[in-house]
Amino acid sequence: MDVELLIIGNEILIGKTLDSNSNWMAKRVTRYGHRLRRITTVGDDLEIISSALQEIIKRKPDIIITSGGLGPTFDDMTLEGIAMGLNRKLELNKHALSSIKKVYKHAYDRGILKLEGMTKEREKMAYLPQGSIPLPNTIGTAPGVKINEGDIRLYILPGVPTELKSMFRNVILPILKERQGKFIEKGFLFSGIGESQIAPYTGELEKKYPQLWIKTHPHIGLSVEVEISITAFNVENGEELVDKVLDEIKEIILNLKGEIINRE
Amino acid sequence: MDVELLIIGNEILIGKTLDSNSNWMAKRVTRYGHRLRRITTVGDDLEIISSALQEIIKRKPDIIITSGGLGPTFDDMTLEGIAMGLNRKLELNKHALSSIKKVYKHAYDRGILKLEGMTKEREKMAYLPQGSIPLPNTIGTAPGVKINEGDIRLYILPGVPTELKSMFRNVILPILKERQGKFIEKGFLFSGIGESQIAPYTGELEKKYPQLWIKTHPHIGLSVEVEISITAFNVENGEELVDKVLDEIKEIILNLKGEIINRE
Repeated sequence: MDVELLIIGNEILIGKTLDSNSNWMAKRVTRYGHRLRRITTVGDDLEIISSALQEIIKRKPDIIITSGGLGPTFDDMTLEGIAMGLNRKLELNKHALSSIKKVYKHAYDRGILKLEGMTKEREKMAYLPQGSIPLPNTIGTAPGVKINEGDIRLYILPGVPTELKSMFRNVILPILKERQGKFIEKGFLFSGIGESQIAPYTGELEKKYPQLWIKTHPHIGLSVEVEISITAFNVENGEELVDKVLDEIKEIILNLKGEIINRE
Repeated sequence: MDVELLIIGNEILIGKTLDSNSNWMAKRVTRYGHRLRRITTVGDDLEIISSALQEIIKRKPDIIITSGGLGPTFDDMTLEGIAMGLNRKLELNKHALSSIKKVYKHAYDRGILKLEGMTKEREKMAYLPQGSIPLPNTIGTAPGVKINEGDIRLYILPGVPTELKSMFRNVILPILKERQGKFIEKGFLFSGIGESQIAPYTGELEKKYPQLWIKTHPHIGLSVEVEISITAFNVENGEELVDKVLDEIKEIILNLKGEIINRE
């Protein structure tokens, strides 16, 4: 399946927060053989969230995951932005409301919070775009949301990493596994010869095996080291093929008098 | 000035590499009072690089910075994608070629690389979109590129963080400083009352001071802690105003029987 991420939060754009959620999700999407096609990171701005979502929908991924902007404050406007982008109204969702009530009651009973009951701001988190299915938040307060938009599954997750991860594991991972493909990524480091010297050979191999991505990355250590890695998405007998091509590359490197440093 | 980032690399989309360049650049863009409006992260794909660039250009930022995909191998296709997006041809740039030659001669003379002279793959890095100004790479091989597209300044930087940072410092930082604005971000942590309890008060303050962003972030520690921070871009007497509003918020928190934990 094709996946896109829409990351929402001023704190990321001002550099206050390093977005680690994207990398965490990217790993998991890839691990099950799916393709993360694009990450779009925008601020807490109604019009921008709405138009960014519309652009993503036009590209027709199978899954869109958003993170951030679900909290009780005025500047958390993800749900409103999504509703605008989908041309749906926000409406009070009873299930979301009852789960939010429970969370606040629990926090009040335990003495974690001093304000009892619901307020306008707490209720705000239960106003979801029409057709939403709320996703329980077992760690924080704001529920996540699932929306089907035509053939696209849209998941709206909180930005707090622990909450995002928990919801991703509970709701999205099962779907990634259900339609699981196979992803392989293997490689090793070499030195003594540079990226540009190996490039014609890997270029030839890429023509011979168009189903593989063969990529080199320079690592600057004490000497110049280059990492070579081969990536295969849903390739038949991919494991054997990748191993075979890596062996061919090792031979080429040794013939060029390069040194193989390690094998992952 | 308004800035957008276009981050290019399959390694980021498969989750192999955490993109730390964006956060590093975001901090610096913000520090000098400029606004990072969006980060777009795509893979090494000609059509996608080209169309992502065209979408960014339509939003008319003052500065576009790309990172990644400048190396000598076939799968590094940033320059070709940018050329396609700008509807310009790639042409051999003599300055770029001579600087690449120098780097390889130096590496060969020192015994770092075993292959002497230029090859098709090394030359590839000197094919730049028409109208490019090459930016010297003092650490690696691939030069960066500056292109003026109408009123937009486009900077094409390498993805290797040390190379990117060095080029950013040399070329982009002076421009950010030259047209420097003032950015302020200050805040503190509190506990005992949650985001939702403070929300109506910060909502009021935001209406009163529309030039400020007042944002709360829950931190889950031993107890629930909330960070409040105020952000101001290019606000007259911003420092004094932010301090004044933070003091107002502290008073509100204390009145609500919350606890102030620290002051950054």
